[in-house]
Amino acid sequence: MAVIVPFETPGASIEELVALVAPDMERVNATILSRTGSDVTMIPEVANHLISSGGKRLRPMLTLAMANLAGYTGDGHIKLAASVEFMHTATLLHDDVVDESEMRRGKLSARMLWGNEASVLVGDFLLGQAFRMMVEVGSLRALDILSAAAATIAEGEVMQLAAAKNTATTEDEYLAVIRGKTAELFAAACEVGPVIANRPKAEQTACRSVGMNLGIAFQLVDDVLDYGGKSAKLGKNTGDDSARARSRFLSCSPSAAATTPNARSGSRRSSAARSATATSTTPSA
Amino acid sequence: MAVIVPFETPGASIEELVALVAPDMERVNATILSRTGSDVTMIPEVANHLISSGGKRLRPMLTLAMANLAGYTGDGHIKLAASVEFMHTATLLHDDVVDESEMRRGKLSARMLWGNEASVLVGDFLLGQAFRMMVEVGSLRALDILSAAAATIAEGEVMQLAAAKNTATTEDEYLAVIRGKTAELFAAACEVGPVIANRPKAEQTACRSVGMNLGIAFQLVDDVLDYGGKSAKLGKNTGDDSARARSRFLSCSPSAAATTPNARSGSRRSSAARSATATSTTPSA
Repeated sequence: MAVIVPFETPGASIEELVALVAPDMERVNATILSRTGSDVTMIPEVANHLISSGGKRLRPMLTLAMANLAGYTGDGHIKLAASVEFMHTATLLHDDVVDESEMRRGKLSARMLWGNEASVLVGDFLLGQAFRMMVEVGSLRALDILSAAAATIAEGEVMQLAAAKNTATTEDEYLAVIRGKTAELFAAACEVGPVIANRPKAEQTACRSVGMNLGIAFQLVDDVLDYGGKSAKLGKNTGDDSARARSRFLSCSPSAAATTPNARSGSRRSSAARSATATSTTPSA
Repeated sequence: MAVIVPFETPGASIEELVALVAPDMERVNATILSRTGSDVTMIPEVANHLISSGGKRLRPMLTLAMANLAGYTGDGHIKLAASVEFMHTATLLHDDVVDESEMRRGKLSARMLWGNEASVLVGDFLLGQAFRMMVEVGSLRALDILSAAAATIAEGEVMQLAAAKNTATTEDEYLAVIRGKTAELFAAACEVGPVIANRPKAEQTACRSVGMNLGIAFQLVDDVLDYGGKSAKLGKNTGDDSARARSRFLSCSPSAAATTPNARSGSRRSSAARSATATSTTPSA
């Protein structure tokens, strides 16, 4: 039991998955819109700036697809999918503060428009709303999976903070970071589908595994693109030297640190240092 | 059905409450210690820096007291009390970033020692752990109350951000802010006691009301002390003029803004402006 999404196979695309869950996704979008509502007008402004900025809704799409695959016939997958998107959005709002990011999805980041304070607090609001929706679904097991994911995501991000200061980060450490900060939410998003459908444990584990591996692949690709893009922006030669550095970064050899002049600066603003020390930015999709 | 904690009555003290819940509080402290554990060493370092810095554990104390009052005989109140303290600690870690605070409970704030990034992310970790513990207790109603509180607290804090820029904040708006950012967690902490004891709705509402009113009183007192302390630190005359300004601040008259020269600066770093525009710092206790 598995879903294979072959990003690179010629002719393959994500469109089939998008079409499969399109009717459910409309309901998820309506739920998202209503649950960002608040009398405090800054909350929907900040939340919707990011939520409606063209993310692909990949994580809630996985929840919907897995629930369908598991033969689920109820309504709970809609709120769980919206919860997953809220958890992701909260992470992005907090990440932008942590990374001092100016841009997100091609627009000014929320913190640039409303300040770090609003980014932190609206992220907290969305986390609270995510848990409220999970509670409404009423599956303690789904709540357990998603609350554990919330803690693990933060753990992965803190791990990355430490890794950013350590030029001798190993491949295992890099993988632990991206498993925590990215793949865990993909895994949880997939696992809750068969969970609310009351499918056997083996199927829940299989779906979780699909999500975990997809999440790892997704972050790896994002880091490669991020590295290439940043190098180009920095006006560096993206030829042989850069390719060598990138390949060393992805193999996380300690010596990769020596290939870039800023690698030992420890500054989170230096993309060279960040790449060389196995940090990675969370993709918005 | 009510618990009265007369802060100001001569001879009265919080010691009776402390003694009443002391055996349970030992178990809460052990739970807190074990649940801040992580292989990512920065997490327990940051969390314990704040958690073990001499807070009075007032909120979890209320959960324990209310559960006892309701005749609860299980173990769930321990984890719920620890969850409440984690939610509070997460709020403080995020508040210090929002307010750019340098000190907390007489020590350097976590963000001064480990950076804003660590404060935001360890706060997120603690929120995740709080929800995991609530899930383990297994009461969907308690989960509902505490997750709603998480969203409401953030809402109150965002409301305060907006109020800080508005010199015409009314008394109602000030009360809405402190109800959200402070009193809501007191209310939820009290309400979950009779909830897990399966007591009638009327008793749950009564306990919630005690918590709400205690929380409002608590924040009002804290703001008065904060205002006085900050005035003194600023080297201002704490005599008649200051007393008048304070009284105007607490009555939230729009004209209060005119009593201090910086009141219209809009800077969150100006304590005069912050006080005059009805913002308030979250107390650590």
